[in-house]
Amino acid sequence: MSHIVRAAIIGATGYGGAEVIRLLQAHPLVKITSVISTSNAGAPLADHFPHLQEVVVDILDELDVDLIASKADVVFLATPAGVSAELSPKLLAAGLKVIDISGDLRLKSSSDYEKWYKKKPASEEILAKSIYALSEVFGDEVKGSDLIANPGCYPTATLLGLIPAVKAGWIDPSTIIIDAKSGVSGAGRGVSLGVHYAEVNENLNVYKVNKHQHIPEIEQALSRVAGKPVVTTFTTHLVPMTRGIMSTMYATVNGEHTAADFIELYRQFYEGRKFVRIRQEGKFPSTKEVSGSNYCDIGFSVDERTGRVTIVSVIDNVVKGAAGQAIQNLNLMYGWEETTGLLFAPVYP
Amino acid sequence: MSHIVRAAIIGATGYGGAEVIRLLQAHPLVKITSVISTSNAGAPLADHFPHLQEVVVDILDELDVDLIASKADVVFLATPAGVSAELSPKLLAAGLKVIDISGDLRLKSSSDYEKWYKKKPASEEILAKSIYALSEVFGDEVKGSDLIANPGCYPTATLLGLIPAVKAGWIDPSTIIIDAKSGVSGAGRGVSLGVHYAEVNENLNVYKVNKHQHIPEIEQALSRVAGKPVVTTFTTHLVPMTRGIMSTMYATVNGEHTAADFIELYRQFYEGRKFVRIRQEGKFPSTKEVSGSNYCDIGFSVDERTGRVTIVSVIDNVVKGAAGQAIQNLNLMYGWEETTGLLFAPVYP
Amino acid sequence: MSHIVRAAIIGATGYGGAEVIRLLQAHPLVKITSVISTSNAGAPLADHFPHLQEVVVDILDELDVDLIASKADVVFLATPAGVSAELSPKLLAAGLKVIDISGDLRLKSSSDYEKWYKKKPASEEILAKSIYALSEVFGDEVKGSDLIANPGCYPTATLLGLIPAVKAGWIDPSTIIIDAKSGVSGAGRGVSLGVHYAEVNENLNVYKVNKHQHIPEIEQALSRVAGKPVVTTFTTHLVPMTRGIMSTMYATVNGEHTAADFIELYRQFYEGRKFVRIRQEGKFPSTKEVSGSNYCDIGFSVDERTGRVTIVSVIDNVVKGAAGQAIQNLNLMYGWEETTGLLFAPVYP
Amino acid sequence: MSHIVRAAIIGATGYGGAEVIRLLQAHPLVKITSVISTSNAGAPLADHFPHLQEVVVDILDELDVDLIASKADVVFLATPAGVSAELSPKLLAAGLKVIDISGDLRLKSSSDYEKWYKKKPASEEILAKSIYALSEVFGDEVKGSDLIANPGCYPTATLLGLIPAVKAGWIDPSTIIIDAKSGVSGAGRGVSLGVHYAEVNENLNVYKVNKHQHIPEIEQALSRVAGKPVVTTFTTHLVPMTRGIMSTMYATVNGEHTAADFIELYRQFYEGRKFVRIRQEGKFPSTKEVSGSNYCDIGFSVDERTGRVTIVSVIDNVVKGAAGQAIQNLNLMYGWEETTGLLFAPVYP
Repeated sequence: MSHIVRAAIIGATGYGGAEVIRLLQAHPLVKITSVISTSNAGAPLADHFPHLQEVVVDILDELDVDLIASKADVVFLATPAGVSAELSPKLLAAGLKVIDISGDLRLKSSSDYEKWYKKKPASEEILAKSIYALSEVFGDEVKGSDLIANPGCYPTATLLGLIPAVKAGWIDPSTIIIDAKSGVSGAGRGVSLGVHYAEVNENLNVYKVNKHQHIPEIEQALSRVAGKPVVTTFTTHLVPMTRGIMSTMYATVNGEHTAADFIELYRQFYEGRKFVRIRQEGKFPSTKEVSGSNYCDIGFSVDERTGRVTIVSVIDNVVKGAAGQAIQNLNLMYGWEETTGLLFAPVYP
Repeated sequence: MSHIVRAAIIGATGYGGAEVIRLLQAHPLVKITSVISTSNAGAPLADHFPHLQEVVVDILDELDVDLIASKADVVFLATPAGVSAELSPKLLAAGLKVIDISGDLRLKSSSDYEKWYKKKPASEEILAKSIYALSEVFGDEVKGSDLIANPGCYPTATLLGLIPAVKAGWIDPSTIIIDAKSGVSGAGRGVSLGVHYAEVNENLNVYKVNKHQHIPEIEQALSRVAGKPVVTTFTTHLVPMTRGIMSTMYATVNGEHTAADFIELYRQFYEGRKFVRIRQEGKFPSTKEVSGSNYCDIGFSVDERTGRVTIVSVIDNVVKGAAGQAIQNLNLMYGWEETTGLLFAPVYP
Repeated sequence: MSHIVRAAIIGATGYGGAEVIRLLQAHPLVKITSVISTSNAGAPLADHFPHLQEVVVDILDELDVDLIASKADVVFLATPAGVSAELSPKLLAAGLKVIDISGDLRLKSSSDYEKWYKKKPASEEILAKSIYALSEVFGDEVKGSDLIANPGCYPTATLLGLIPAVKAGWIDPSTIIIDAKSGVSGAGRGVSLGVHYAEVNENLNVYKVNKHQHIPEIEQALSRVAGKPVVTTFTTHLVPMTRGIMSTMYATVNGEHTAADFIELYRQFYEGRKFVRIRQEGKFPSTKEVSGSNYCDIGFSVDERTGRVTIVSVIDNVVKGAAGQAIQNLNLMYGWEETTGLLFAPVYP
Repeated sequence: MSHIVRAAIIGATGYGGAEVIRLLQAHPLVKITSVISTSNAGAPLADHFPHLQEVVVDILDELDVDLIASKADVVFLATPAGVSAELSPKLLAAGLKVIDISGDLRLKSSSDYEKWYKKKPASEEILAKSIYALSEVFGDEVKGSDLIANPGCYPTATLLGLIPAVKAGWIDPSTIIIDAKSGVSGAGRGVSLGVHYAEVNENLNVYKVNKHQHIPEIEQALSRVAGKPVVTTFTTHLVPMTRGIMSTMYATVNGEHTAADFIELYRQFYEGRKFVRIRQEGKFPSTKEVSGSNYCDIGFSVDERTGRVTIVSVIDNVVKGAAGQAIQNLNLMYGWEETTGLLFAPVYP
């Protein structure tokens, strides 16, 4: 087929990269033409991920912009913080479309980036050019763009759960508290005591309290939607599981709105967007109910005693929180149906 | 030794009962003289818990108040909701001391009990007589008492984390939000789809949102300490692990208090109480760091951006949240050092 | 498309049924037209499996042969032992093709079935008619058949790992010892103490030692391939994970064959069969490397010290060990490429 | 008390060392006087193991033989392979008793050590002097010794399960096949991809097939008991759990012996040894049933169809497989009751 888009993946030996490969391998309009690893070029990908043996046969390419440009139309960056800031401009200059799954291009303020990431930020020019692509909210800006900042995993679950209520003025943004929990794959494939099985299993950890780099990303999007600066309390926990994020969110309700009202509001907001599923009244999603899939499921409770709403939003951090949404954005970029290649069911149990 | 106290355990085939047995078996001043199960009398305990084979040899007794009174001085009730309300008066009348691990005698308001537990409450007389025995806070009332309402697992972690700050007036009680997470053992040994391994593993669930029966228990204690009615937002999550509770708590700080201030306040409040350990600034406890032990570890962060304090409190739900605190209360009841038989280290990893 | 095959699934509220649904939903030549549950007819499937909300919308049908015949061409039976023996003849009589995922039709000897399953066997006629469809070995018999006995999970992993060596006469069948391990999903969705999370987590169990109903199934196939009766030692373990089977198999090697020889033998045996992947020398598969997929991966070691070969074979018990192989057999039945709709990558990590 | 033995632990920041500390802290006749770490001297132990905060207060000492000799009577070595071979002679020369939990002193043949450990072996003198202290089998040699080679985790479970049958001549040693499974803590606290949570969770791995360094240790003991050279097939698996080892063992039975016969044989062999518990006929132990404890539980099945016995033996690898047996050997060394300080119940669930 002449219209097949050729894709390269940089960072193919990490979890995010491997998931882009898994999902693209089933995409009807895309062909993987290069898998790239700076440190392992020349070796078979299957040495790093035996599960991909005979699935994707390519030898890992080195990171060479000209080589990529000769092989691919679009490139996914599943790279550590700091890489994309340098690399994206070169890829764009070589005529490639870029979908950056790292955090480098998400914050419009380079000083915020420096403060929270402790790294040198991307240029103002590249930050201005990149589209913060929370698909269901800002997806309209994606079409025709050639530089996508794919949202972070926690921000995706959190913002999809908060934005309709903030936009409608139904909750007081100054009262928002976000208690977020993630599986371990979010930490990536690098080794450390913090991901040692015996330290994580049968254990629940809280980490980076009030220091997580996703705080400014969440506040940037909420502030944009609220039309005024929003600061939030955001806490992250490490749950003994591999995949999944749950954001449990609390806020004071403005006026009188029941859980049923919230459900209706959200169903209207996300109408036609297949990947956001609003649960019925009295029902809440669990992380496994979206595992392996691109869905984000959301449930609500309003407590009359306290006047607060509790919003629970779940995603698979590796799919909707990374590779899946990246491909959803690829679809939007090319003007395809956003669900193309992504309408597989969650893997349960 | 002539002063050995003889103990009976009702509900010996459940997790709470088994943990009382495990811990008492190592207690220097107590001897287990009867293990009781209404539905399995006559069978060896080891049929239900093979790990106790050759550890505790007794055959399960039936539930017979006279028999208990002839064998024991004190009885632990590790029974489902509704049992103790009926049974405790009879045990007391037979001259036994009673330590009730169930929720029946915790709420002073019988209408609250009916509302949240959907069961017939205990008599006003018995509710008035029972001591709500959060050891480190209300332990003074335990000595000489013969009827103990042992606190719930979530309330133990939560109240130990909140009470010093509420009592000092350092946080605004109306802003308290409690995001609590528990391992599966808290659900007991009964079978249901909700505890099926394949449903719980690699999954994070939220449950009983704004409906958990521990809400009135927490509010009753906070109100007592605050000197005015307190209502809270309290959410419970099921984490894929067997043991452990973490309460992540949020509140607006009154005035200017740093994390270091909170640490100092709590260290003073819990001075001399071995089982509450306050972490250093910048450090937070994980649930495994107290697993198998009677410790409650607490950490703090104050965020200047939001004016809120985040308090993280962890316990082993089966020990400090049930059997361990029950034995701690037994120690207080008899005027022994509260740590007697309980000073074992957490099991890590 | 006029050639779409219409499929019904009986037992849609169990794990096997749900997996057939997940996989068929992505199959290009099949449409699910009925999901059936004897005990829950009339309710939405999503009440039982919220992850299927908006994926498969059907209300559960009751089990009515005429209704099925009016809606479907082929029916999958994901039912407990004893159901298919009764039901299959009726479905066949109504003109349906039947793929039975249960164990009812696998043993050609009805007395063996009675002995190992403790249930009334299917009629001799139906047993004679059914095809034991281990796809890569006996797949030639499937085409054109209308009654498939889909192999069990343990037998699939075990037989794919043993048959080439037995057939070649490279191992002594009388020395075969099979040490098999499974995740919990193999036990189905029914509740029992044996699948309680707190009993399974951080635990390794051995069960049904020398009593598992898959023993005669394995021996029947090995005997057929060996051309003489084979008895084996087969032990099953319950591993604290949801999906996955590993069979570790031991046998004395006839003559001089290295691991490299075995690898070559197996690669030739399975040439052209995409779903069996033979690992390189010195490499062994882990269960997660096939999780969520239809692959069976196999590795070898030959120990000169003992003269024994160790063969390790892994599958996802719910996919290759049940629903996936069932669909592979559907493909063979209709003469389609056996990989149709099944070539998705394992979900890793 | 004047008879308190003073103990030092080298390798206190690893899992084995931490477990020695946990157990000794509850031992009535021992006091920990030094915790030692070569790489972290000067730091608080609680920086590495927060769960030991306020349990053991010592600052980590450096590794200085004179310092140890001034503080302690006995020293536990929980060190990587290669350390003890060098260090033990110096500690002995300084008048210390040494209990080596590493593998350095277990193999009497230094060439076997070199072959399987790929390290420089200890001197012949020190190897000749050390006692291989499988407590229930070779414990008589421990009393009065001052150099103990504590058995490995896999060998402990395996040998306790095989030796009575081998010694009695009831099984043919040449037919022994050992399929062993371990939790992850056995790999120690060092970081690597192999212990990354996301790689281990929901996964079952087989590793070091026919290459594990515990093979010669097992064969050395079996050969000694059998009175002739024994070679075995031994395979190790990594199970997604933290603690626990199960050895599933197969052998051809010599003559006619039922499971009941084996049970009787083993009960007699281990009479008076509290830590080995033989299960009733038809019952098998699971790893959790000994978790956190010093027990080894064993069950049996004899299959008349194959003439083989299946023996299942479980231990907690960190306790009976390391620290617990080390303390049991300390007890034997000093002529104390072997159960002193070790009679705590397993932690279940």
